[in-house]
Amino acid sequence: MSVLIVGSTALDSIKTPNAENPRLLGGSASHAAVAASFFSPVKLLGVVGEDFPRRYIQLYERLGIDLEGLQILPGKTFHWSGEYELNMNHRRTLLTELGVFETFNPTLPKQHQDTPFVLLANIAPSLQYHVLEQMRRPRFVVADTMDLWLNIALPDLLKLIKRVDGFVLNDSEAHQLTKEDNVFAAIKKIHKLGPKYIVIKKGSHGSILSSPAGYFLCPAYPLGKVVDPTGAGDSFAGAMMGYLATANGPVDDHIRRAMIYGSVVAAFCCEGFGLLRTARLKRPLIEQRVKELEAFTGF
Amino acid sequence: MSVLIVGSTALDSIKTPNAENPRLLGGSASHAAVAASFFSPVKLLGVVGEDFPRRYIQLYERLGIDLEGLQILPGKTFHWSGEYELNMNHRRTLLTELGVFETFNPTLPKQHQDTPFVLLANIAPSLQYHVLEQMRRPRFVVADTMDLWLNIALPDLLKLIKRVDGFVLNDSEAHQLTKEDNVFAAIKKIHKLGPKYIVIKKGSHGSILSSPAGYFLCPAYPLGKVVDPTGAGDSFAGAMMGYLATANGPVDDHIRRAMIYGSVVAAFCCEGFGLLRTARLKRPLIEQRVKELEAFTGF
Repeated sequence: MSVLIVGSTALDSIKTPNAENPRLLGGSASHAAVAASFFSPVKLLGVVGEDFPRRYIQLYERLGIDLEGLQILPGKTFHWSGEYELNMNHRRTLLTELGVFETFNPTLPKQHQDTPFVLLANIAPSLQYHVLEQMRRPRFVVADTMDLWLNIALPDLLKLIKRVDGFVLNDSEAHQLTKEDNVFAAIKKIHKLGPKYIVIKKGSHGSILSSPAGYFLCPAYPLGKVVDPTGAGDSFAGAMMGYLATANGPVDDHIRRAMIYGSVVAAFCCEGFGLLRTARLKRPLIEQRVKELEAFTGF
Repeated sequence: MSVLIVGSTALDSIKTPNAENPRLLGGSASHAAVAASFFSPVKLLGVVGEDFPRRYIQLYERLGIDLEGLQILPGKTFHWSGEYELNMNHRRTLLTELGVFETFNPTLPKQHQDTPFVLLANIAPSLQYHVLEQMRRPRFVVADTMDLWLNIALPDLLKLIKRVDGFVLNDSEAHQLTKEDNVFAAIKKIHKLGPKYIVIKKGSHGSILSSPAGYFLCPAYPLGKVVDPTGAGDSFAGAMMGYLATANGPVDDHIRRAMIYGSVVAAFCCEGFGLLRTARLKRPLIEQRVKELEAFTGF
């Protein structure tokens, strides 16, 4: 089965203590779509400007990503610029130019409306909701978010997560949303807001699933060096949804393994700037690290 | 087989945002010995003053802990007082009265010198070394430490860890010791200092083992509420060593499971002040949570 992914499609200018890379392919939907493409057919829904480099379109195409839902509009592509500190957990935004994103109205091509798996990657929750309303009985819908929307669009976000199956967020965002310092106490409160499946991302500390089948404590793949963590969370969610879409049977039977694939692709993402490492991935490399994670966690 | 545990035996006065408990049984050796006692025979090596409450001696005795190595000297018991913030990861020391600990000279009773498993729980590394020198060919020696010794007794600590099999420390201490922000890069540097087995404790994020058999990513037991984290790390190390001492065969075959038991006992420790919860534990309760952790981690 296939996955529909909506989110931002952007140009990212990223600075770390060691290097600087301007105008890389970025955005939540780009990272998620590339990650999902190693597992299942992907339909991308997004918007870019006329300045969007042809080679990025070719990259999507090479990975077999369906671009019928990618609008190319007069104007500039969304451009984000950020800088990481030595401790990669801290970054600051230097610049945000919304460009064509400012008036983005995600309209689903008719043949996309029956896609069974839907990932509402990080964009304004009102846009995520607008996409969800155009879907016809999707099988499994997951929404991601970021602190910005908790700050400026909380009512929209609360309206959205009432209607999704799964909700993916960082531990710091879970604390912000619930005012609970303890992550498991926070999870309990978030379930009351709607989602049956909650995934808390904790960066290098892994992630936690709370589902009707109980908790799953998902490890992060051990990395001795992080080059650029931008998009790791989007890659995680994309790979998870891509894997789920190809697994037969109930979501509960496969979501744990899907998160393991998410962890592995997220780790690859961190090993290069932007999508440089992820885009060159091959499935056997992913499988190798999944096996390693099995070896690192059995007892 | 049995475990010899040396470390501090103290009275802890602990303040949290919700409660205050004066003069609880505490200290690294107390926490570790109680935790280990659920698995194997334990020999405690420590010192207390004449003010040490009789009921704490009875608690050790009820758990079958061998007290031949516990010196009772004229003077006052080591007294520590600390206060936790709302976020339990932050605490500050209010008071440290060394008392009889100031002149502690841990001398091993002759029949303790052949104990196969040795846990050098957190005390001054020179004292840990002094105990190690009195042992006759122990099978497996693990040392724990704290940031204080990295600050004021680094040469002693480096001398000690050259001679131990295993070294247990917090992630923040690993960063402090190696100047490496990445925990896996830090582990590589610590191996070069001697220990073949390194356990990095990450509190509620679990722990990491690096050993000749590779990494083990050990989860923390999920807790919805932490009452008092004092002694959790000591409980972890104690339970790990207690479990190892009763397992037959090579350490590599059992250390992962031993860490799982460590995680479970550490979680119980956090559910009560001082040793109040841990001391009332029964083995079946521990086994139940180990089973839960199995269920929370399989994929």
